[in-house]
Amino acid sequence: MQIRVINPNTTRGMTDTIGTAAQGIAAPGTVITATQPAHGPVSIESHFDEAISAVGVLEEVMAGERDGVDAYIIACFGDPGLLAARELTRAPVIGIAEAAFHMATLISTRFSVVTTLGRTGIIAEHLLEQYGFGQHCRRVRAAEIPVLDLEDDGDAALTRIIEEGRRARDEDGIGAIVLGCGGMADLTNEISEAVGLPVVEGVTAAVKLSEALVGLGLGTSKVGDLAFPRAKAFTGRFEDFSRYSSPEPSALNPYHQLERAPT
Amino acid sequence: MQIRVINPNTTRGMTDTIGTAAQGIAAPGTVITATQPAHGPVSIESHFDEAISAVGVLEEVMAGERDGVDAYIIACFGDPGLLAARELTRAPVIGIAEAAFHMATLISTRFSVVTTLGRTGIIAEHLLEQYGFGQHCRRVRAAEIPVLDLEDDGDAALTRIIEEGRRARDEDGIGAIVLGCGGMADLTNEISEAVGLPVVEGVTAAVKLSEALVGLGLGTSKVGDLAFPRAKAFTGRFEDFSRYSSPEPSALNPYHQLERAPT
Amino acid sequence: MQIRVINPNTTRGMTDTIGTAAQGIAAPGTVITATQPAHGPVSIESHFDEAISAVGVLEEVMAGERDGVDAYIIACFGDPGLLAARELTRAPVIGIAEAAFHMATLISTRFSVVTTLGRTGIIAEHLLEQYGFGQHCRRVRAAEIPVLDLEDDGDAALTRIIEEGRRARDEDGIGAIVLGCGGMADLTNEISEAVGLPVVEGVTAAVKLSEALVGLGLGTSKVGDLAFPRAKAFTGRFEDFSRYSSPEPSALNPYHQLERAPT
Amino acid sequence: MQIRVINPNTTRGMTDTIGTAAQGIAAPGTVITATQPAHGPVSIESHFDEAISAVGVLEEVMAGERDGVDAYIIACFGDPGLLAARELTRAPVIGIAEAAFHMATLISTRFSVVTTLGRTGIIAEHLLEQYGFGQHCRRVRAAEIPVLDLEDDGDAALTRIIEEGRRARDEDGIGAIVLGCGGMADLTNEISEAVGLPVVEGVTAAVKLSEALVGLGLGTSKVGDLAFPRAKAFTGRFEDFSRYSSPEPSALNPYHQLERAPT
Amino acid sequence: MQIRVINPNTTRGMTDTIGTAAQGIAAPGTVITATQPAHGPVSIESHFDEAISAVGVLEEVMAGERDGVDAYIIACFGDPGLLAARELTRAPVIGIAEAAFHMATLISTRFSVVTTLGRTGIIAEHLLEQYGFGQHCRRVRAAEIPVLDLEDDGDAALTRIIEEGRRARDEDGIGAIVLGCGGMADLTNEISEAVGLPVVEGVTAAVKLSEALVGLGLGTSKVGDLAFPRAKAFTGRFEDFSRYSSPEPSALNPYHQLERAPT
Amino acid sequence: MQIRVINPNTTRGMTDTIGTAAQGIAAPGTVITATQPAHGPVSIESHFDEAISAVGVLEEVMAGERDGVDAYIIACFGDPGLLAARELTRAPVIGIAEAAFHMATLISTRFSVVTTLGRTGIIAEHLLEQYGFGQHCRRVRAAEIPVLDLEDDGDAALTRIIEEGRRARDEDGIGAIVLGCGGMADLTNEISEAVGLPVVEGVTAAVKLSEALVGLGLGTSKVGDLAFPRAKAFTGRFEDFSRYSSPEPSALNPYHQLERAPT
Repeated sequence: MQIRVINPNTTRGMTDTIGTAAQGIAAPGTVITATQPAHGPVSIESHFDEAISAVGVLEEVMAGERDGVDAYIIACFGDPGLLAARELTRAPVIGIAEAAFHMATLISTRFSVVTTLGRTGIIAEHLLEQYGFGQHCRRVRAAEIPVLDLEDDGDAALTRIIEEGRRARDEDGIGAIVLGCGGMADLTNEISEAVGLPVVEGVTAAVKLSEALVGLGLGTSKVGDLAFPRAKAFTGRFEDFSRYSSPEPSALNPYHQLERAPT
Repeated sequence: MQIRVINPNTTRGMTDTIGTAAQGIAAPGTVITATQPAHGPVSIESHFDEAISAVGVLEEVMAGERDGVDAYIIACFGDPGLLAARELTRAPVIGIAEAAFHMATLISTRFSVVTTLGRTGIIAEHLLEQYGFGQHCRRVRAAEIPVLDLEDDGDAALTRIIEEGRRARDEDGIGAIVLGCGGMADLTNEISEAVGLPVVEGVTAAVKLSEALVGLGLGTSKVGDLAFPRAKAFTGRFEDFSRYSSPEPSALNPYHQLERAPT
Repeated sequence: MQIRVINPNTTRGMTDTIGTAAQGIAAPGTVITATQPAHGPVSIESHFDEAISAVGVLEEVMAGERDGVDAYIIACFGDPGLLAARELTRAPVIGIAEAAFHMATLISTRFSVVTTLGRTGIIAEHLLEQYGFGQHCRRVRAAEIPVLDLEDDGDAALTRIIEEGRRARDEDGIGAIVLGCGGMADLTNEISEAVGLPVVEGVTAAVKLSEALVGLGLGTSKVGDLAFPRAKAFTGRFEDFSRYSSPEPSALNPYHQLERAPT
Repeated sequence: MQIRVINPNTTRGMTDTIGTAAQGIAAPGTVITATQPAHGPVSIESHFDEAISAVGVLEEVMAGERDGVDAYIIACFGDPGLLAARELTRAPVIGIAEAAFHMATLISTRFSVVTTLGRTGIIAEHLLEQYGFGQHCRRVRAAEIPVLDLEDDGDAALTRIIEEGRRARDEDGIGAIVLGCGGMADLTNEISEAVGLPVVEGVTAAVKLSEALVGLGLGTSKVGDLAFPRAKAFTGRFEDFSRYSSPEPSALNPYHQLERAPT
Repeated sequence: MQIRVINPNTTRGMTDTIGTAAQGIAAPGTVITATQPAHGPVSIESHFDEAISAVGVLEEVMAGERDGVDAYIIACFGDPGLLAARELTRAPVIGIAEAAFHMATLISTRFSVVTTLGRTGIIAEHLLEQYGFGQHCRRVRAAEIPVLDLEDDGDAALTRIIEEGRRARDEDGIGAIVLGCGGMADLTNEISEAVGLPVVEGVTAAVKLSEALVGLGLGTSKVGDLAFPRAKAFTGRFEDFSRYSSPEPSALNPYHQLERAPT
Repeated sequence: MQIRVINPNTTRGMTDTIGTAAQGIAAPGTVITATQPAHGPVSIESHFDEAISAVGVLEEVMAGERDGVDAYIIACFGDPGLLAARELTRAPVIGIAEAAFHMATLISTRFSVVTTLGRTGIIAEHLLEQYGFGQHCRRVRAAEIPVLDLEDDGDAALTRIIEEGRRARDEDGIGAIVLGCGGMADLTNEISEAVGLPVVEGVTAAVKLSEALVGLGLGTSKVGDLAFPRAKAFTGRFEDFSRYSSPEPSALNPYHQLERAPT
């Protein structure tokens, strides 16, 4: 089983950190291939960075389809491009925020998130609401460290994350902590020991969820909004996407019947 | 890794069906031990049946703790006794309804449930709300077959489930179907093929989620509401529970500090 | 009119406290019969205790049906076994948490709960969500006293409840306080005077709601999920439940027609 | 105990119907005094009618305070002026919509409303959301009869209500029906028999809830948003309201401390 | 284009303040006519004041219809009589609370409200829920100043509002502040500068929204619950409302067809 | 005032349609400049198309900043890149879905959406939830026409939209219809006349909302999650974005203080 872990930013060191963490947790038969887009921001710290990074994620999924990938992980806590990526493949696609939220609710009744910058907290809030975990999360907290400090000034970053985690433990009435950045993938154990709570980290959680789905024979549904996108022309720097062609005829007609009734 | 699959009803045939399905999906190193309570209803088709069955589930978890079990699965779609069971162990405990809901949201944006009896649909509704998946589920549907008909009149039951699944596919605007009864664990593939949608079944989903959590080194949090219960006296037919003694000193004082602040 | 007040734990002193409070508030024609299960925990301070106590509650309802009881009250703030109990009778069944929440919303626009142990606060949160009162309750607070301290160390317990109530009054922006434990049934007036807010206590509230429903000729609906459970075999220590037989033929067929359409 | 039942419209016949229904259900010691405003619409069938009727309701509460009333009922299904009325008194004030919703959730897990005109259904929807019962109500249905037809063409009206109630029974998956108009107070039994479901009617429900609150010694909280309004000048046709003077000094200062913290 | 700005209280000075602020922001072709009811409270500081003020608002809309008004603004932060007013006209009717909430969500992801008295905060909470902005508003704060102090003791009032606004900025994690009283219409710029956040004020916001709707040719829908009210008799001091006659035949029959299906 | 209307797809004809509709509704002093990205899909009919189109939207906002644009409109019903675009400017940025939803709630109490393809309905559902309008929208309906058919086969498309609109009118219990595609901007009046309901179209709605915000002096808040993004390196085809430099020093430190407290 090949799991493609896509680091949506373009910092090689972070890709390595993430890939190593992923491989470290993977089952014997699982091959992790960690990649990063050729095009995009070196870190993701805003809605803007996230929107740009989604394109790179989608290109990596297209590449993965040619490589016979069995499952994809989007290794940024905002899950950039998640639903779009699902349209491109029959394989499962897992975001690390959603992976961490799911796992946290299975081992605790309430959790808090500790993320990097406060300004990205709203992205986590939006995901919590969309995924349905708004009631389960007591609070989204920020250690207020730039993402690349995780690479460049790891000790200071770790200290601040642990401090914020302890505040969460003492003030939030929670049973677990979710780490809110893919770049923290190698810090899970240290934080858990220092804080004294189970710590759920998204990259590792997503690896195991991917293995679980592949093991179940479940992949992204191709009926409904996640069906392959209709083939069409793209212009300019995205012209090469015009070559993308859905492996299936347009889902237009059968879908018509499905979608009319519900809502 | 030993996963204890607890069939909350006392029908041996159903335990076997569930155990076989669980073992069939398990990873090479995973040992499935399927059990059923010595005490309880032969099927679970009401709030009443479910409340009684919870006691048996808890006894099976206590037994499992003596057996060194690594993860527990509660194999009835109402997830009877789930939070109580989590209090008794550091291992993960997964309900099959929650397992199926989690997995379904990872491969589709909207799903429907097909369960046995309409009167138990409200149990699924309550769980969907508590777990946070109310928006993801379009509709809880019933094939209106008594649970044990899955054992005794399998072909007719299968036909009705498929019919209801096709109605869901045509009317609900969904991408996947969740099967709403542990007794359907062996029917997943047939139903999926007949309906033409991915079908998520809870027993198998819970096995893979259990493997995932154990692989991550994550178990039930012992801080907060899932800490071991305080040791105390039980009377009458439950007197033997008095012998249960939390493996840890009372969590009263430290918890005091945690819980005052939040909500 | 006979109201059966079921104390779900097996501590006789608490049953007496509850029964006395119930009789003290009852209308002239109302007879309160306070009981406790023969089997179960001496106090309810966890999901585990609550799950076990539900069985005793159900047995008491079965006994009550033989005694011609007109309404039932489940006198533990987690409302253990509430929906299951409703299945067993045409009489109304009221939980004291739900009773207190309902009454509190009729005299104030926002309230807070003061309960015993922080770890049971999550049970109140889940009930608030299921019943629909999540927006009305500002905060679930714990005085952090073990339940039986209400019996054994009443003065200290009262002091802590009053302290927490005053904090609620000063910090939560509320108009009323809900007491979160059946064992506080005799403390209502003292707390209300000391805190300076209306205090809603569940046992007394449930008595008056029971009288109200009986007066209206309203009992638990026997159409839908609260219909009598289908008769079936129980094994082991619950074998005697096999003798339970729904007073009505199986609701399977008519219910089929009802439940297919909605959701 | 004196309960003042305020019919918010000015149709004497409907006041009599409501008063008779209220007295018929009242406990021995309860005196029902049914009134109607001197000023207002003959029926309430729109947001506009409802807004005007609120003034009359408030005047009737002011009058009731002079008469030593123990509890007030607002007998129109939109609960016009409810929170304003609560500000004017220490006695409980109950709206018939809220009364019916509360009672319906105690005897069934899901209910539907059958009201008069479809255009007032939105008022019921808004109340369901504000009170917290949005999930409990499957559907708000209209028999599409003008309110006064209940007086003038009772048989035809009854037939249509029963038809709509049967549709609710067959299509909505419910356990009870709530009648959505005070003018239906005398039809409860007939409808319940014809439909075969428990029927909850608001006037009678509110009488019993009022008796319950008075019996508990609970009245409207005078701390927070329901404190007596600050005395002030009113002009024009409402000049006489200037004579209204809160029985207590302005709640401004103590309230300041309370409200700053929360939300 | 004539916009009628209705100050729901009867304090002439506040009408002038509001009218001046409205005219100051209006487009060249817009004529602002600021009015106040002949009948009602001099300030609105409670549910009671608000209920009475709604009548005056409705009379002003009736008057406006005779004057050929193109859009109406209800210039009190509780939006008194909003839905009722909409029934009386084909023109748009905008409440200043809703106007401010809408605009605030277009320039920020989260905002807080700063209002006058804490006891009216609950009115804002109810509106936030009904309008759908509950998640967008972090907190409703009160400066605890009586409404008329804005007129009589403007400097002290301004100081307190700024203090509360700074607290919101420092504690709430917001991007904008909404002013919670029509009487603050002339303070927007000063507060914004002092606090360092965009400040959204409802009167000015409603003027621009009114111009927008009129420019789009959109007015209040006359299909459904906002259709003209059915003509009927009013008694007593509201007898003159009997002369109100819907400009259209009763919407009863066509509406019947519409409303039966949905919910 | 210059409003930049960005058509997120690259079909010139649709840009013209949108620009013409926008200019047709604009106030005298408003200059509409309609643009489209140089890079991107010719139509947006999937999550994938939408994710790619967001990049083009952001480039157009960057270009607009150089041109001194006063407000931006994102003229695709999925509001692609909305929050990211807001980060890049102090000017207001309005999506046409949000614009239409806001305006629809001001003239009706409930509305339905009629969009092009059923598979994009989920995008509208997600936006409705995120913006807070989930309760206001009865149903998202699809006419099941490919987006470019609006250009290429306009008459047939119009017929199907009208048919679906009439179904909404007859079945949904609504007061207004929202058109779910920027390409329908020129069809508003025809559809409204044919259906007999007010029809809210997003491009025109957004023009008037933009004028409103600019008139109020309100722009996107630069405090919190919408502050300018931190300057950083981009690689590959997005390398030119590295030249983007926030017009302000990094918001890291002050924001730290803001965001720690809340949630």
